[in-house]
Amino acid sequence: MKPLIFITNDDGHSSRGLACLTELALEVADVVVVTPELNSSGKSHSLTSNVPLRVRAISEGDHLSQYACTGTPVDCVKLGEEHLCPRKPDLILSGINHGSNASINVIYSGTMGAVIEASTLGYPAVGFSLLSHSAKADFSHCLDYVRAIIKDVLENGLPSRISLNVNIPKAESEPLKGIRVCREAGAYWSDSFEKRIDPSGQPYYWLTGKFVCLDNAEDTDEYALHNGYISIVPTHPDYTAPSYIEPMRGRFEKIGK
Amino acid sequence: MKPLIFITNDDGHSSRGLACLTELALEVADVVVVTPELNSSGKSHSLTSNVPLRVRAISEGDHLSQYACTGTPVDCVKLGEEHLCPRKPDLILSGINHGSNASINVIYSGTMGAVIEASTLGYPAVGFSLLSHSAKADFSHCLDYVRAIIKDVLENGLPSRISLNVNIPKAESEPLKGIRVCREAGAYWSDSFEKRIDPSGQPYYWLTGKFVCLDNAEDTDEYALHNGYISIVPTHPDYTAPSYIEPMRGRFEKIGK
Repeated sequence: MKPLIFITNDDGHSSRGLACLTELALEVADVVVVTPELNSSGKSHSLTSNVPLRVRAISEGDHLSQYACTGTPVDCVKLGEEHLCPRKPDLILSGINHGSNASINVIYSGTMGAVIEASTLGYPAVGFSLLSHSAKADFSHCLDYVRAIIKDVLENGLPSRISLNVNIPKAESEPLKGIRVCREAGAYWSDSFEKRIDPSGQPYYWLTGKFVCLDNAEDTDEYALHNGYISIVPTHPDYTAPSYIEPMRGRFEKIGK
Repeated sequence: MKPLIFITNDDGHSSRGLACLTELALEVADVVVVTPELNSSGKSHSLTSNVPLRVRAISEGDHLSQYACTGTPVDCVKLGEEHLCPRKPDLILSGINHGSNASINVIYSGTMGAVIEASTLGYPAVGFSLLSHSAKADFSHCLDYVRAIIKDVLENGLPSRISLNVNIPKAESEPLKGIRVCREAGAYWSDSFEKRIDPSGQPYYWLTGKFVCLDNAEDTDEYALHNGYISIVPTHPDYTAPSYIEPMRGRFEKIGK
């Protein structure tokens, strides 16, 4: 029996990046795809708890089944691996996202929310993102790399609770230079909400923002991507800043004594 | 002029934990409260980008102004600090949440999403959570601790991009033993979606789940909380697993060479 690869994303069923990833996975495995009914970019690690979810079968076959789910990407992983897979998946993939999930973007990303969730559930998991928001983005320059990463992780797995955040420069005249394993660059999004006035004179606010990179060190994902490399960040579901534990002990543990 | 403290949460305007935190903040500062119109538990770090946001003034005064916003907790921070504060806040708080945000819960948490967002924007920020989901939870046992933490961070700030995830055991007959500065315990939520059949025979799925702690080491937040201590985890907006960068280099950087 072939391995089983589970795929989700945050762009929904009809994205070109999803089609591309599904095609590559089918070369080596049976595939179950569960994607959000609605575009879920920026849904991060959010869960749906206040309403029940529905699932719609798009196609069901021996080697490929595709479903849409009314939840978030994290919901798709939890519900899909539990109720929609014929057997336990060997690998969980997300993407290929249309847009960067490098650096600080990972904390907002539905694509990577799904991947990090999969890693908490004990699955090897990889998220792929291309640095182009175009719905017609060209993925041909990276297919060999994506194929090789899928093959490696399917064969060798990943350490417990570790997933991979893979970002890919968009297609240029120069070919990709290779892969760099990196840490996330420190960055933030500034200038966040634009105020406008509606026809009845009331204010409303649209999300906007400018990416500000604070950290151009050579071991970061942003540096690798700007220099023509695919970046891979080994990612864990843990926000602890370990180097601050000891300094904070003296400061806070004396309270109440 | 007094310092300005900005407060948000994910439980919405009428929560008892919010009232408690607002009262403590008013002892030392002017306060602006911006909370989600709808309960936003489990909204994690999600952003609203596909629809514009609205803001409703609940009360506006010299020392306390309160607003409700149609967005997520992260939206409340971004929009609130930019458009609703009379001056730059000195401190951003979130909570007091009704329910734990220790361990893996932090990645799903709207309360902590807001705090981590504030830290990316350069603010000292602290999230407070009580280990009780009761809407009528008792906060009296922890007021002196919360007051002391607010005072310390207002006076001394926090390192750049570091925030605090403070979790508090629920009130018991024994008083709290003190504070422990910790790392997040490794854990996950299992058994995630319960399948039911609606009156027309169609399936639907409700989120459920069981918290499984994998890690009972004495330096974790779960250990501290189970032993009667408040836990504080120094938190950064970074999912990089640094100890896996070097081992992954040999494995992935050879692809394409």
